[in-house]
Amino acid sequence: MAEPVRVGVVGLGTVGSGVVRLLMESAEHITRHAGRPIVVERAVCRDVGRDRGLQLAADRVSTDIHDVSRDPSISVAALLVGGLEPARSMMIDLLEHGKDVVTANKALLAEHGPELFEIARRHGRSIAFEAAVAGGIPIVAAIGECLAANRIESIRGILNGTSNFILSTMEQEGADYAEVLALAQAKGYAEADPSMDVDGTDATQKLAILSHLAFGTWVPWSEIPRTGIEGIDSDLMAFAADLGYRIRLVAVASRSNGRLAMRVAPALTRIGTPLAETRGAFNAVSIVGDAVGPMFFHGLGAGQMPTASAVVADIIDTVVGRAGITFRTTGVLDTDGLSGRIGEAELNERHFLRILASDRPGVLSRITGILGEHGISIASVIQRDPSGACGAAVPLVIMTHACGSSAIRKAVTHIDASDVVSGPTTCLGVIDD
Amino acid sequence: MAEPVRVGVVGLGTVGSGVVRLLMESAEHITRHAGRPIVVERAVCRDVGRDRGLQLAADRVSTDIHDVSRDPSISVAALLVGGLEPARSMMIDLLEHGKDVVTANKALLAEHGPELFEIARRHGRSIAFEAAVAGGIPIVAAIGECLAANRIESIRGILNGTSNFILSTMEQEGADYAEVLALAQAKGYAEADPSMDVDGTDATQKLAILSHLAFGTWVPWSEIPRTGIEGIDSDLMAFAADLGYRIRLVAVASRSNGRLAMRVAPALTRIGTPLAETRGAFNAVSIVGDAVGPMFFHGLGAGQMPTASAVVADIIDTVVGRAGITFRTTGVLDTDGLSGRIGEAELNERHFLRILASDRPGVLSRITGILGEHGISIASVIQRDPSGACGAAVPLVIMTHACGSSAIRKAVTHIDASDVVSGPTTCLGVIDD
Repeated sequence: MAEPVRVGVVGLGTVGSGVVRLLMESAEHITRHAGRPIVVERAVCRDVGRDRGLQLAADRVSTDIHDVSRDPSISVAALLVGGLEPARSMMIDLLEHGKDVVTANKALLAEHGPELFEIARRHGRSIAFEAAVAGGIPIVAAIGECLAANRIESIRGILNGTSNFILSTMEQEGADYAEVLALAQAKGYAEADPSMDVDGTDATQKLAILSHLAFGTWVPWSEIPRTGIEGIDSDLMAFAADLGYRIRLVAVASRSNGRLAMRVAPALTRIGTPLAETRGAFNAVSIVGDAVGPMFFHGLGAGQMPTASAVVADIIDTVVGRAGITFRTTGVLDTDGLSGRIGEAELNERHFLRILASDRPGVLSRITGILGEHGISIASVIQRDPSGACGAAVPLVIMTHACGSSAIRKAVTHIDASDVVSGPTTCLGVIDD
Repeated sequence: MAEPVRVGVVGLGTVGSGVVRLLMESAEHITRHAGRPIVVERAVCRDVGRDRGLQLAADRVSTDIHDVSRDPSISVAALLVGGLEPARSMMIDLLEHGKDVVTANKALLAEHGPELFEIARRHGRSIAFEAAVAGGIPIVAAIGECLAANRIESIRGILNGTSNFILSTMEQEGADYAEVLALAQAKGYAEADPSMDVDGTDATQKLAILSHLAFGTWVPWSEIPRTGIEGIDSDLMAFAADLGYRIRLVAVASRSNGRLAMRVAPALTRIGTPLAETRGAFNAVSIVGDAVGPMFFHGLGAGQMPTASAVVADIIDTVVGRAGITFRTTGVLDTDGLSGRIGEAELNERHFLRILASDRPGVLSRITGILGEHGISIASVIQRDPSGACGAAVPLVIMTHACGSSAIRKAVTHIDASDVVSGPTTCLGVIDD
């Protein structure tokens, strides 16, 4: 048997503790896959005194990253600290001291990926990050290795488990957003401050990473158009259900007329299709490749052991040498002239509009007239007999035929500026397959 | 740019032609992923005169495998010939002459895997076979690499596109088996002799390969209990639908009391679950790992370009060195004392029975009595008012609670030997998740 590989684990939060547990409890199994034992030489955390239930000797746990980066016996480090700093400085320190790094930190890569990848390349090290996107689903390997023969046409993903738990629970219970958010917090599916999850930031950062792999271009995540789920109410869900759809927070990156169209926003997904059937805290990714056709992946996108599973797979890949090989060709794709001006790229799709129309004569004609002026034709309309007094706002639901994002945006601005509506229009994309 | 890698393509049938097309048409893209150009140095086929619409110079195509195996400039060979011989001899010839091999031939690996893997190891070569199971779905990489940190608990797959096309079309059209088989043959989804697909052989061979990866044990495929779809009729489908299920040909390998329980057979899959929602010629695989939890993959399991996509990904993996690394740890798992005596392993699950009962007093009591004697309790019963004359056979449908395979097998034998039935009972496993 070959010499053991010594690993440093930086960060002993939920994921870090899971990684230590998995490396220790499944040691024999992992040794067989790696061809040699993988041992946790040292763990670094903020509070060494806390009992995490790990079988880790006290003298192997400390608070100083240098205990990992300066230890020449350690060749691989798992960086499992969240946020941007000190995570960024820690990763640079590890790379500069010759460690290959495995991480689950998607915010760090989405924000500083180009810099960190460059530093790693300069030092001949690798960064492996399967766990940063969609937890245990091997989507990074799928795009970077398994679909390497394909020109990727599009990626659509449910990449944030918290949002999906909230949306699918709202739909099952007929409950409202605030109520379900409180439940999700109580159950541990949402953090005390859930804003990064529910405003789409988390999903957008993951989409930026996947797009780097699939299209070879680093898109600054903050430039990707993004809408969270805070505005979704149970009325919207009921209208969607009437039309045969469920509302999901969908991250999209798609080639469209030589540009890369990207967006994270709630969308209508047709009942019976894989995205619509993704429930609870699960993640899902649907990819279309020119050779392989449509491909779909579904699994737990977060949680201690699913994420640890991806981190440990990356540690094994690093130990055997696969990660180093893969990292050398990560993101080297020609961008095929794809424009980086994301905001201007058009997604051509059907749209669902909920318009808070005034209940008086001529309103429907006025609104459909505005849509017509922008070249948007209508597939179906739902307007119910209002229960309130004459003159109150009534929801008018319109499903359009396929149209470009900019046309629908202009039409909605026009409608909302007119005197026949009493509040902002909700406009959601429609995904039928 | 590094020197080109020269590849030999052995077999220019549907998949072989697709591989040549993909390597030539996506050459620039593939070069970026491989770090160097991959060129088709030579193709070998039976009929050099046939026009396959390939941009391959005539002097690069010949009929002799030695033109690949004896060419020292060729380092990788794609063996895309079906069946056992001459495929087996060809692979040995290629390995012995120092070629790394990529193949899509599942029958060859299921039958001769241990021998071929041993020859490859002896010569320091690799065999990559992503395309042999579930076409473009990267399930071999998922199990062998991405889920390496997991102890796999179970695999369930829809691994034969032809059978799935037939079953899902029967269900959509309310049509009978023979009729839909003829349609599938006309559409090219079934071969003139479809027996390997519809009798479960193809799915069983794929299950044997997946089990080698997931459980580290080579199970002779012919020892895996196997039932085809020939006995499925539209009445069975209607009864299943009444109970909320669809019938699918499901390959199962599952740890069960320290043994490996395996089976390929039609099963009831609950509507709304991923396996039941797999339609047409698609394949699907559901895996449970101890760390990652449930994971689901869906995509095109056959066809020219999806299979070529997997073959070319394997060629790239071989060129960059990943395939060689992966092959060294393929199937090295400890079998954890899993018994190889597959036939005796028990799957504990609910069962669906259709009994052709005689229409006379006391029959239901007699049949439920037999089930009770074998310790099997009943969850639900459907017996409809018979339309035929008194004394004719009426279908009696029983859904049991979970019970072991051997108990239900004995009970069915007992029922079929009794004088209250007029034909053989159909017994299908039930998959609820």
